[in-house]
Amino acid sequence: MCGRCLSEAVQVLKVENLKKYLEKFNFDSQALLKALGKYISEPVRIPLYILKKLPSFLRKKESSLWIVLGKKENEWEILEIFYELPENVLGVAVDLGSTTIAFYVYDFLKNKLIKEFSIANPQVEIGEDILTRLHFARKPENLKYINQITIEAINRELESIDFKNIYYLSICGNTAMSQFLTNLPVDYLFIEPYTPVTNWYGVFEAKDLNLKSHPLAKVFIFPCAGSFLGGDIIAGLYFSEIYKKEDGYYFYIDVGTNAEVILGNKDFLLACSGAAGPALEGGIFDCGIQAERGAIETVEIDISQKKIKYQTIDNGLPTGICGSGVIDLIAQLFLNRLIFFDGKFSPVYFKERFKKIKDELAFIIAFSEETADKKEIYIKESEIKSFLKSKGAMFTMLYLLCKKTGIEFKDIKNFYIAGSFGNNIKVKSAVMLGMLPEIALERTIGLGNSAGKGALKFLKNANFSEIMSIMEKITYLELNVEQEFMKFFPGAQLIPNVDLEMFPLVKKELQKRGLCLK
Amino acid sequence: MCGRCLSEAVQVLKVENLKKYLEKFNFDSQALLKALGKYISEPVRIPLYILKKLPSFLRKKESSLWIVLGKKENEWEILEIFYELPENVLGVAVDLGSTTIAFYVYDFLKNKLIKEFSIANPQVEIGEDILTRLHFARKPENLKYINQITIEAINRELESIDFKNIYYLSICGNTAMSQFLTNLPVDYLFIEPYTPVTNWYGVFEAKDLNLKSHPLAKVFIFPCAGSFLGGDIIAGLYFSEIYKKEDGYYFYIDVGTNAEVILGNKDFLLACSGAAGPALEGGIFDCGIQAERGAIETVEIDISQKKIKYQTIDNGLPTGICGSGVIDLIAQLFLNRLIFFDGKFSPVYFKERFKKIKDELAFIIAFSEETADKKEIYIKESEIKSFLKSKGAMFTMLYLLCKKTGIEFKDIKNFYIAGSFGNNIKVKSAVMLGMLPEIALERTIGLGNSAGKGALKFLKNANFSEIMSIMEKITYLELNVEQEFMKFFPGAQLIPNVDLEMFPLVKKELQKRGLCLK
Repeated sequence: MCGRCLSEAVQVLKVENLKKYLEKFNFDSQALLKALGKYISEPVRIPLYILKKLPSFLRKKESSLWIVLGKKENEWEILEIFYELPENVLGVAVDLGSTTIAFYVYDFLKNKLIKEFSIANPQVEIGEDILTRLHFARKPENLKYINQITIEAINRELESIDFKNIYYLSICGNTAMSQFLTNLPVDYLFIEPYTPVTNWYGVFEAKDLNLKSHPLAKVFIFPCAGSFLGGDIIAGLYFSEIYKKEDGYYFYIDVGTNAEVILGNKDFLLACSGAAGPALEGGIFDCGIQAERGAIETVEIDISQKKIKYQTIDNGLPTGICGSGVIDLIAQLFLNRLIFFDGKFSPVYFKERFKKIKDELAFIIAFSEETADKKEIYIKESEIKSFLKSKGAMFTMLYLLCKKTGIEFKDIKNFYIAGSFGNNIKVKSAVMLGMLPEIALERTIGLGNSAGKGALKFLKNANFSEIMSIMEKITYLELNVEQEFMKFFPGAQLIPNVDLEMFPLVKKELQKRGLCLK
Repeated sequence: MCGRCLSEAVQVLKVENLKKYLEKFNFDSQALLKALGKYISEPVRIPLYILKKLPSFLRKKESSLWIVLGKKENEWEILEIFYELPENVLGVAVDLGSTTIAFYVYDFLKNKLIKEFSIANPQVEIGEDILTRLHFARKPENLKYINQITIEAINRELESIDFKNIYYLSICGNTAMSQFLTNLPVDYLFIEPYTPVTNWYGVFEAKDLNLKSHPLAKVFIFPCAGSFLGGDIIAGLYFSEIYKKEDGYYFYIDVGTNAEVILGNKDFLLACSGAAGPALEGGIFDCGIQAERGAIETVEIDISQKKIKYQTIDNGLPTGICGSGVIDLIAQLFLNRLIFFDGKFSPVYFKERFKKIKDELAFIIAFSEETADKKEIYIKESEIKSFLKSKGAMFTMLYLLCKKTGIEFKDIKNFYIAGSFGNNIKVKSAVMLGMLPEIALERTIGLGNSAGKGALKFLKNANFSEIMSIMEKITYLELNVEQEFMKFFPGAQLIPNVDLEMFPLVKKELQKRGLCLK
């Protein structure tokens, strides 16, 4: 009788009547494999580490054993054998982000996520942005250093778990992160044509990567489909399952340092990426912060009452403004005539909120007396311009992917938006600004950390073939060489767009507010 | 253009136009794999060790690389990359015998065997016979010790070669030797039902077995089909190719500590083994030695001239008598009426040659003044008896395997005899003594060290599937439970046999000499 078959990555099985098999077959390994054959039809490998234990384990008192198996691309491998049901059989999914490393500890016996936490990526000490790290890592000893601090940081967390009972790790990261993790040279990753060393990593031995875990633990590293389409995107797509959808078309949107946009369904995946990210996330603004406690995430301006209402995450005293807050803020500034269509300030009303900061006009969202650190929270005109560039790039990508494939926005069934950004974004404001098409109003789904969730999904499902099918379906559209992009992009930087007919609902709202003459 | 594809275990290929592939494909690994795809249709794996070098190798001056690939069960693995044709790409076949370890150094570039030598198995220090070693190894620390001295002895020889350029090892040994090599417990190998830990070893990393070689070198260990049918027998069968023969039936005979006999062709392999070995090899006699310089290998007795003519290996001064010499000697003793049908001495003629040694009658083959160490070389009556037991067992095995399968001796196309024994044996004498059937007179082929040659063949052909097919075809016939064996065995100990009708030619010769009345 099968004990527990809870995951496609790791199985924990109870095999019984081993004495009977030992009598019937001429080899210990054969007896075990035949007994296992009742539960597993794929090939099973018994490594030397297990063969060494096998003779005595097979012959002691109880005629049953608990077997822990781990899945590789084409076979199962026996990772451990026990007399009794082991206490802990764990897996860890790791989303190796360039800023944050997120951990998801999965209990294979209980079939559930038991712990979830994140740490700062220690590589930040070398540089906030990836380009600095890539330059640094050109020297082999520096590459080795980045690799070591990354592995050490991960190991510190694995050690805090019951690491000897970690049997499987599933790791995703962008292309640079994956190469740092595996200590692969990055010299050609940041010069044209941006060639990664490899696309398919597959399954490693944890010990070969120096990761702390069970001696036979396996590590799956998500493949990357290009220098700008790393394992994090593949993991996110794997979580979103748009590659399986049979009806209509779907967008997967990931806003990070870059923004990656993928359009597709079970038949194709067309991807592009562009520098639309940081301004959308708000992270590069003077007062921009991540979506954390105290971050302003919604803004409402009542010009008649000369009031600004804002909401912070966890109701903390305001400490800055996060991506979704920026979108809301700029939409409100526009609807209240505080900025023009092109993002320039119109400091006619609400004068007390306008102020020169660093030689530039800025709009104060929260005065110093309101904030956590008694510093005012503001947005500069150049920041608004930078945001409009990003949102213009985002909309242009959506538009172009549709145009290339002859698909209309109305045929898009869902807009999946990754990251905490996706969970917090006020779609109405994004549509108002012309960042997302109007159809997104009712069809947007925030996925949260879809990369991490994809890595976690692998611990449950280990669909190697599905992940390979994503790799086979995906095509990368190079925007640099698209004339269409440069033609459409300038008009997409206006609010909502130079072509107002693309946003009929927004037009109606603007007309209502007297912001639109036609 | 393909550089060199010389072996199915290791290929050395020159791949060209890499720049073109780099331009065309988005990943370094992909560029290399596509370039390799011109020469290799099976899947190819690029390990991390190679991925680390790949970016710089792909982009330096020459647009071509030399690639060394090693074969695993289901895929090729890239083991090394070079700018220039490497100087040495070596493989080593090892026949891990319980007494002697034979090495065959194979040059994959020149496609030939470049060195062949052997050393004593260091395990002999623990005990001459395997049973002593198995008992010793019951303690885990002792098993580890045996493993270590074995690996160290092999490593000393590998170090004397250009070990960093050894890319593949192919090792065969009997079941105990294979388990000592892989440090697997032998506790159940010498108690009924004599269960080995595993039948299929497959391909290991040399570093996992602590064998000195290239960091990615592979090690194939021949599988064993039972405790008495070890990897040495499988390697010998693999060399003999009887498992491929379409016409008629074949015997494969290996005489060692035990004698193993296999009957079959492409349709089946029926094996048995018995304690027929040591006496046939002569190794356990007072004056028995291996087939080495100075060993008496042929004997001719001229009773009328009262002369004994013998031939030693390499014409050295006599130092002892080897297996083929013993067979020749006993046949001559019998034909010259110096022993009876049952092996008892008949010291009527040639009295000066008979002498009591250790309380037992013995026949002097060489007097002390003739020999290398001035010690007489002799055979005792009990030794002749012991030989007759062994030859009786051998013939009974041949007889029984045929009887079980309904095959007659005349249907046997060839008798393949392994070992130096097989090369030196005088078939006429063996037939005269009733050890081999008369049909063997023209159908016997000595294979030499077929186990070592099988291991060497693997370095050239790496036919995993053929070796698996041997494993699938082979059935072991347990003689202990065969009543027929005990019925036939006593009569088979007479010279040539209690049933003289089985040996019509021998009968005629005996009649000619007046030794046969009927």
